[in-house]
Parts: sequence; structure tokens; C-alpha cells
Amino acid sequence: MSSMIKNITNVKGIKCWGAHTGIKSMRRDMALIYSEVPASVGAVFTQNQVVAEPIKLAREYMADGKAQAIVVNAGNANACTGPDGYRGAEAMAEAMGEELGIDKELVLVASTGLIGEPFPTEEITKGIRENVSKLSSKSNAGSFAANAILTTDTFAKEGFLEFDLDGYEVNMAGIAKGSGMIHPRLGTMLAFIVTDAAIEPKLLQETVKEVADKSFNMITVDGDTSTNDVVAVLANGQAENDVMKSEDDPGYKLFRDKLEEMMVHLAKLIVSDGEGASKFITYEAVNAPDEATARALVRAVFDSTLVKAAMYGRDPNWGRIICAAGNAGVPFDYRTVDLYLGDESSQVKVLEKGIPQEYNRNYMKKLLRAADLMIILDLDNGDAKSKGWGADLSTDYVLFNSVYTT
Amino acid sequence: MSSMIKNITNVKGIKCWGAHTGIKSMRRDMALIYSEVPASVGAVFTQNQVVAEPIKLAREYMADGKAQAIVVNAGNANACTGPDGYRGAEAMAEAMGEELGIDKELVLVASTGLIGEPFPTEEITKGIRENVSKLSSKSNAGSFAANAILTTDTFAKEGFLEFDLDGYEVNMAGIAKGSGMIHPRLGTMLAFIVTDAAIEPKLLQETVKEVADKSFNMITVDGDTSTNDVVAVLANGQAENDVMKSEDDPGYKLFRDKLEEMMVHLAKLIVSDGEGASKFITYEAVNAPDEATARALVRAVFDSTLVKAAMYGRDPNWGRIICAAGNAGVPFDYRTVDLYLGDESSQVKVLEKGIPQEYNRNYMKKLLRAADLMIILDLDNGDAKSKGWGADLSTDYVLFNSVYTT
Repeated sequence: MSSMIKNITNVKGIKCWGAHTGIKSMRRDMALIYSEVPASVGAVFTQNQVVAEPIKLAREYMADGKAQAIVVNAGNANACTGPDGYRGAEAMAEAMGEELGIDKELVLVASTGLIGEPFPTEEITKGIRENVSKLSSKSNAGSFAANAILTTDTFAKEGFLEFDLDGYEVNMAGIAKGSGMIHPRLGTMLAFIVTDAAIEPKLLQETVKEVADKSFNMITVDGDTSTNDVVAVLANGQAENDVMKSEDDPGYKLFRDKLEEMMVHLAKLIVSDGEGASKFITYEAVNAPDEATARALVRAVFDSTLVKAAMYGRDPNWGRIICAAGNAGVPFDYRTVDLYLGDESSQVKVLEKGIPQEYNRNYMKKLLRAADLMIILDLDNGDAKSKGWGADLSTDYVLFNSVYTT
Repeated sequence: MSSMIKNITNVKGIKCWGAHTGIKSMRRDMALIYSEVPASVGAVFTQNQVVAEPIKLAREYMADGKAQAIVVNAGNANACTGPDGYRGAEAMAEAMGEELGIDKELVLVASTGLIGEPFPTEEITKGIRENVSKLSSKSNAGSFAANAILTTDTFAKEGFLEFDLDGYEVNMAGIAKGSGMIHPRLGTMLAFIVTDAAIEPKLLQETVKEVADKSFNMITVDGDTSTNDVVAVLANGQAENDVMKSEDDPGYKLFRDKLEEMMVHLAKLIVSDGEGASKFITYEAVNAPDEATARALVRAVFDSTLVKAAMYGRDPNWGRIICAAGNAGVPFDYRTVDLYLGDESSQVKVLEKGIPQEYNRNYMKKLLRAADLMIILDLDNGDAKSKGWGADLSTDYVLFNSVYTT
């Protein structure tokens, strides 16, 4: 198979597959990823109080910062499934470990799909055992894996980067699935990134946490975190760079930036999916006293259904934006704020130091017809900033989510 | 949206979109592609005697070698739909042309989906009118388009190439969908390739015909050609190279080779899809008296259900291969033939000058366990050759196609 499109199979030492095990009718429903050598792993998991069984297992197994394989099933979330579900997740790790000849603790298990359905452990472990031998480093295997983790997504989300890290060629690639807007019990966000960079587990874990906070944690579709969310990064060291151990190590800063580029790329793809959404909105808070404040403001605005509905309706309703920001739970004085509204390339100042500005309403209407909008809050009160991305709230969204009963 | 993964949106002057118009529940079901300037078009259509309505229209409209837009709907093939279907295809071209402000004859219309269903002209033209304004040159729009043409495919098939053509940077990208093995009324093969190279329509048409014969016409899944198959290439000249007019023009040979690389890449992805298939098989006939003979032999072997079932069963049954070759309808003397069988990287000679060779059966069994197999017929009777790609015939395939009634 030619490798015209680069993906996770282009990361040194990585093989993968996307299988059809029969959980979903006629779709691929299981992704398998394998690193030829044990890798450092950094991972963040759902903040939801209800946690799926594979997440519990993964938190245990990944605690030592080492992983060598990932297995993900789609179609059944293995959440709210009790002890049987936990044993099912464990059985997945065992089957994968046995077939690969590695410790089960080196296997990261994840699931996505319907919550509260009995977990078909036997069918799924059979699927693992039948497909490990198909692990491949060919390009189409990467496409299979990217597609096998999808549920209501309308396209596979992939990214690939190559860069020079202090004289060594490093590859980084990722796959993700979205927080579907359509089915309230199918909303998992998953992202798996593999790289051949060498980095110590502790530093990788800190980096993943920090960068996920700036990317996957700064997107919103419908504001809910699922029981199954996982963002994991495996770094197997096959690029043979000097192992990064501290933030001061050469190349670390670049690695961190590339990981952010990858995570932001995948996160934005997640937002851009979902047929109910008609707009892709970038939110920025700039010149804030600190990053936490900037982030809280962005999150408050982009989670506001009133703001999202206004964006759908092409309504430059800045009052709703200021109101949402005021509810962010952080000190916020609107009298210092400049507010800009527009499309991606040009924005109009609608508020200066809290005072409404005159602007050409026809021009604004034209800007808001764009598919990509931008909202910028300038606090003029420091130099910290934050960025987030979200979808609008459309009549289609409401229709989908009201007619689909569980 | 970042453009980490390059696709059709990276071809100069090309915009696209993949829409959800409601023909398919919760999936994107319409691809729109637009070139900012009129392009040369080369296209080949199905050889099936039953021809879908959009194919009839496309043959008329594309006869002058010019096109500027493509619109494809998935979910309804608009085949066996009579005069109403033809008017529906025409209405698609009209709606697309009006919204874009271009001649309807510049619009290539294609359809895929169920045969013999009434064509929902109103819903589909409404979908066109609502989505033309979303045409975009961002990377995610390319993914949307690639996914919107799928039916039973389990992943989107894409390719991207950039190369230096006589000093000019040329981009070429394509999307394709497979000849599904699952639903006998959903088997369309579609491929749309766009490039910013400048080439005259006549030469492009000849090239597309020649290269499609070496790629899309040399793959087999279940041997059937659908009513809706289209392979089309649009070349809009935005790379600003000197317009290629003859095979002797500088750069033409490279352009032709790149087009073959792209078509073979997409064709192989089509074969690799289809969960019923367990093997990807490459067939070669070498040292044949002429290319037509080599091609006929490859086609005869890869269309043989006995050969395909043997490959599924990991059975080095060379007798079936020779037998199929003997039925190819071209002169063929097995007494000059060497036959090789194995996996992608190593093959065993099982026949020399038509005489069975001793070989290690265990080693052969091991080779045939691979997911990618290779069958080579060496005719020792000239220097022409041909290559083809196919899937095996699995019990799953038969199961799928026997339990799914139309």
C-alpha cells in the first residue's frame, strides 16, 4: 500500500489496525495500536464523576508512565456496567497483552459507544485475538484505526507532523474522535497521539496535562464531558534523540509546541464535526491578569447557550457575551473591556472600555454570515491570554437532540 | 482550521465542501468541488450497459473537455429512474451552475447509492443551493468532501502529491469511494482527481483513459462494474506551467507518472476496504508478448472465484491459477510459464516452464498467512507486463452478500 498520506503508521516503531469485530454492523469498531518497544505514556482522563470501567483500569495501568499498546472498542462504552464491566476491560488488556507477548499493564484500554449496555467481553476479546496478527505499518492500517474509533462522527480526525528535534528527525501523529452532538449517550472524546521522540514519563505526563488544558479542554460542542474521555500520548524513543528529562533540555520547548499544535489541530477538527453546527467560533481573551482568568472567561462565554444561539442567528448581541463573561466566577470589570466581533480575518470593535461603539450594521451582518467567527475580549489588564473553540447552537442541534430518545 | 493533512483543498484554485442534505440519516451525503477557473477535464465512465442518468448527462457535458465544478450525491444512484431521473441530474447541474454563476455544462454530476429508487430532485437541489456558499479551501472541507461520497466504505480514500513540473510547483489530489462488496445495489466506484497543472483537454482525456486502464480497471473486488462508475480529472492550470499539448512536451511524462501514482494509490485503497476481504493480493504478468495479453491474463486470474477462495484458504493451489489464465481468451502456453506465489516481499517458484517445483510447504503456508499476497506469472515470451490488485473471497463476503436481500 502506498503511503501518500502520512499518519500514525509513519511514526517509527508503530503498527496499528482497525478491525470489524461485529459490535457495530458493517463498520470497523476496534482500533489496535502497538509500539515495538515500551513507550513513555502521558494521559488525562474524564473529569466526570461517573467514570467508565476502562478508565478506572487505565488510571491504574498507566500510573507507572509506561505503555506499549492501545486497544479501543467502539459501540459499547463499558460505562455503568459494574464489576462485570471492569473485568471486561481487564480481559481486553489480558487478551491484547497475551497476543503481543507483553505485560497486560502495558495496555491502555479505552471504550466508546452506548452507556449502560452489558459489555460483550467474549466477542470483544475474540476480536482482539483475531486481529493482533494484522497489525501493520502500512498507511491504510492508519486509516482503518482512525475510522474504527468513530461513533457519530462524520469523518476521521487525523494529524501528522515531522520535525527536527535537536538534530533528530521526530514524527508525531494522532487520531481522535469527537464529542458527538447527536446522541447524548454517545459523546466520548478520544485522542491518541504517538511519537517516536524520547521523553521521560514524568515530564511527558506534565506536558500532556498542560497542553490538553490549552486544547482539548478549551473546546465545546455541548458542554458535557463524557464518562469515557481519554487523551493519551505514547512516546517510544525510536527517534533516538537524547531523552528529554526537564523543561530546560534542548528540544523540549519545540516538542511541547508541536504537541500543542497537534492537540489544537485534533481539537478543532472535533469542533468542526457535528452536522447540527453551522458555525466554527474562535474565542479569545487577551491582556488578562493571568491565564486562569483568561481561560475562565473564554469557557464562560463559549458555554453560554445564549451566545451560541446568537452566533447561529448572526446576531451581534454583545450584551450576551459580556453577561456570560460576568458569570465566569473570576473578577471581571466590563468597564476596562474592549470587545471585538467578526469573522476569522476581520473583527469590528463593538465595545471600547465597556462603552458601545457605533458600527456599520450591514458590514457586521456580512461578517457574521461566515462559517468561521471570532470573538475577542481585550481586558487591558495584564498580558495573559487564552483561546478556545466552539460550535454555535442551531435549530438542527435542538431537533436532533430532542427527537433522538434513548 | 490547520492544514496538517494535505488534500484536495491544497490544489490551487480549488474549494470544496461535504454537506448533509438529509438523503442519508446523520451522514454527510453530498460533495461539492469548485475550481475558481474553468478546467480541462478528462473522464472515463462505466462500461456497464445499464447507465445511470447522471452518467448520460456527464458524457454530454464533458464532451468539450471543459469543467469547473463537480457535485456528487450519495444515497440515491439515480439509475433506472427514467426521464425523471435525467431531469433530476440536469436540475443538479442547473442549481450548481446558478449558485456559482457558471454554465451548467461546466458541472460534472455524479451519484451513488441505491439503484431504482425515485430520485429526490427537490431535496437534492435544495441541498446544493444551501451549501454552495460553504465551499472552502480549508483542510476539514476536504475531509468533509471525501466522506460525503461514501456509501458502504469503511474509510475515506484520499491522496495528495506535490511535484516540480519543469520548474513549476504542481499539486494533485484525489478522493475516491469503493466498489462496496456488501450491498449489491451500492457498488459504485467514484474517483475525482484535481490538479493545478495546465494541460490541454484532448491530451488529458487520452492520459486519463490510458492511466485508468492501468489502475482503476486493474482492480477487482467482486468483478462487477456498476451503473454509476466515474473517474474524472480536472486540471485548472493554476500552477501556471506551460500548457501541455503533446506527449513530447517537457514535464508531460512526469505528470503522467504522477497521475498513475495517484490512481494506483486510490485504486489500491478501494481494494483494501471491504471488511469481507481478508487478503490484499497483487497480481503480475511479466515478460508477455504485449501489454494486452499481460492485462488479459491478470484479469482472468484475479476474477477467478476459485483462485480468490484458495487465497482466502491459504492454499497454494497453482492449478487454479494456470487454469484461470488458460481461460483468459489470449494465446497462452503454460509450458513456457514460471509461476511465483508468496507474500509481498518473498515469493516461491511453484512452477518452472510449466513443471511443478518442489518447495517447502511449511514455509509456503507461513507466507500465505500474510495479509498481502503476490502472484506472478512469468511468460518468458517478450517484455510486456501488467499489474492488478484484488481481494480474496472469504466466507464473510458470502455471508454478507447472502443475508442482505434487496
